[in-house]
Amino acid sequence: MEFLDRYQEIVSQAIKKYTFKGKPVELYEPMNYIISHGGKRLRPIMLLMANELFGGDIKKAIKPSLAIEYFHNFTLIHDDIMDEAPIRRGVPTLHILHGVNTAILSGDGMLLKAYTFFEGLEPDLFKACLRIFTHMGLLLCEGQQYDILFETQEEVTYDEYMRMITYKTGVLSACSFEIGALIARADFQDAKSIFNFGKHIGIAFQIMDDYLDVFGNQESVGKKHAGDIFENKKTILYLLAKQHATQQELEELKYWYSKKTDNIDKIYGVEKIFRRTNVQERALRLVQKHNELGQAYLGKIQVSEEKKKPFMELANYLLKRES
Amino acid sequence: MEFLDRYQEIVSQAIKKYTFKGKPVELYEPMNYIISHGGKRLRPIMLLMANELFGGDIKKAIKPSLAIEYFHNFTLIHDDIMDEAPIRRGVPTLHILHGVNTAILSGDGMLLKAYTFFEGLEPDLFKACLRIFTHMGLLLCEGQQYDILFETQEEVTYDEYMRMITYKTGVLSACSFEIGALIARADFQDAKSIFNFGKHIGIAFQIMDDYLDVFGNQESVGKKHAGDIFENKKTILYLLAKQHATQQELEELKYWYSKKTDNIDKIYGVEKIFRRTNVQERALRLVQKHNELGQAYLGKIQVSEEKKKPFMELANYLLKRES
Repeated sequence: MEFLDRYQEIVSQAIKKYTFKGKPVELYEPMNYIISHGGKRLRPIMLLMANELFGGDIKKAIKPSLAIEYFHNFTLIHDDIMDEAPIRRGVPTLHILHGVNTAILSGDGMLLKAYTFFEGLEPDLFKACLRIFTHMGLLLCEGQQYDILFETQEEVTYDEYMRMITYKTGVLSACSFEIGALIARADFQDAKSIFNFGKHIGIAFQIMDDYLDVFGNQESVGKKHAGDIFENKKTILYLLAKQHATQQELEELKYWYSKKTDNIDKIYGVEKIFRRTNVQERALRLVQKHNELGQAYLGKIQVSEEKKKPFMELANYLLKRES
Repeated sequence: MEFLDRYQEIVSQAIKKYTFKGKPVELYEPMNYIISHGGKRLRPIMLLMANELFGGDIKKAIKPSLAIEYFHNFTLIHDDIMDEAPIRRGVPTLHILHGVNTAILSGDGMLLKAYTFFEGLEPDLFKACLRIFTHMGLLLCEGQQYDILFETQEEVTYDEYMRMITYKTGVLSACSFEIGALIARADFQDAKSIFNFGKHIGIAFQIMDDYLDVFGNQESVGKKHAGDIFENKKTILYLLAKQHATQQELEELKYWYSKKTDNIDKIYGVEKIFRRTNVQERALRLVQKHNELGQAYLGKIQVSEEKKKPFMELANYLLKRES
């Protein structure tokens, strides 16, 4: 999409411009490393899009958009330590390259640096944005802690799952849009609407992520097929299957989810239950539901339909993907 | 000291009042645990003292003073992971009790929570305080990274050491005082003076800490005698000794600081060089020097001498200690 490319270029240029030049380089170089290895820059783009939607000046929004990207990368650094992930975006993770200590510290520094990127805003906007930003951070920590707990928690309810993905994924896109709206001085109601649009798009995105693990095109997903089943992750597919399983299937699921193995019998057995309980269609229906909820919030915003088009395109792009 | 007790009580009450009640408890309980196991609450007290010095309303300063205490505890949680420290303030550290992952996450949450404690301030003050707070955080990260680097860096200069302790210790007391002054709406020059008072007191405190490792009363220090020598730490004693050592002593120091051992010959050999080069007196002279620099800044502040007395008492308390 043309508008995405345009925004991506703006964000990339800004990241280059604000490359950290501080000392010691051993602290700042790892931050530059992770931020330069990209990703799609979706969250800063969301901030810029919302700012433009409400007639804001892009110059004022660029540094806050970087704050969102740095914040996101702070969470990636610390999450990768927790997950013992060796690779991110095709390159070694920070704790692999520099050790856990420097990775913890560079993550902390990244979060603090993110805060500095709001300093160009007038005091009232600065305060409004930082409140949202800090509380977003706390919700993400809560979501991450729930995710850790789910690993050892025998029963995870649908509501618990929804809360976890809302905190871990929905809130970040919601707040990216909301902060962009505030910087453009959108009215309170419109800012809340774009927040809720972002929340539901984020939730739909995460459900799609769970879906693609099993039903995605393996080549374009670029991850191991059914990695979540192997890891015993309580994804939406697992939760939906449990809701619709027979007693015997429940016992079978319990059996397989008590052992960490990539035994082909496990993957085959679990997928058979997933198919029988029709979780593929159920999950896609949920994606559709949250997409529609998001669109409804978008509909409430008092700007021309023409201006809303890029938001629909973004949602389609995120949800129609095969990877 | 009476005024310290009074402030300590105020801070303790406030910490109790604002006990984190959020969920999941697995995230917030570790934060409550570390904050409830005390310490002397010196940094929030510094903020409250400066606020009172400039005629501020204590009610307005209490929550920001907690921000400083939470920030300090955030650094302790992450530093303890990095140092693999099993004990803090006589109780097990968080990563020992809950694992490294929860400790990283609770540390992150603690830093974010700290930010929320400024939200009661008017936008202009909120912005002024948060700028100081965030940049203080970055300097602490830089200081911590320098400290990590010193472990493997063969030569550490006196200037490098001073920068490291200024960032790791001086800046936190400096900013605690400065934020307190700002909340009382002290004038810019006075705020800078109390900042510099805090900086030099912090530096003197850290030099005293190095000194007590070898020359302190072991019982009141409550730590292993000469632990820094055992750990090959490049303390001020080591740096001063190197400045005044003979060629033969330099080689001896190099030999001992290349092995991690609590061999009594090492401790004995190094302490002999410390005594011969008279580092005991030299270190105390440095403490005195920074104390005087601090006092000079205190002298510049335009309030009555009577009001400055608690600051002198605090400095004496910190620097005359035997532990």
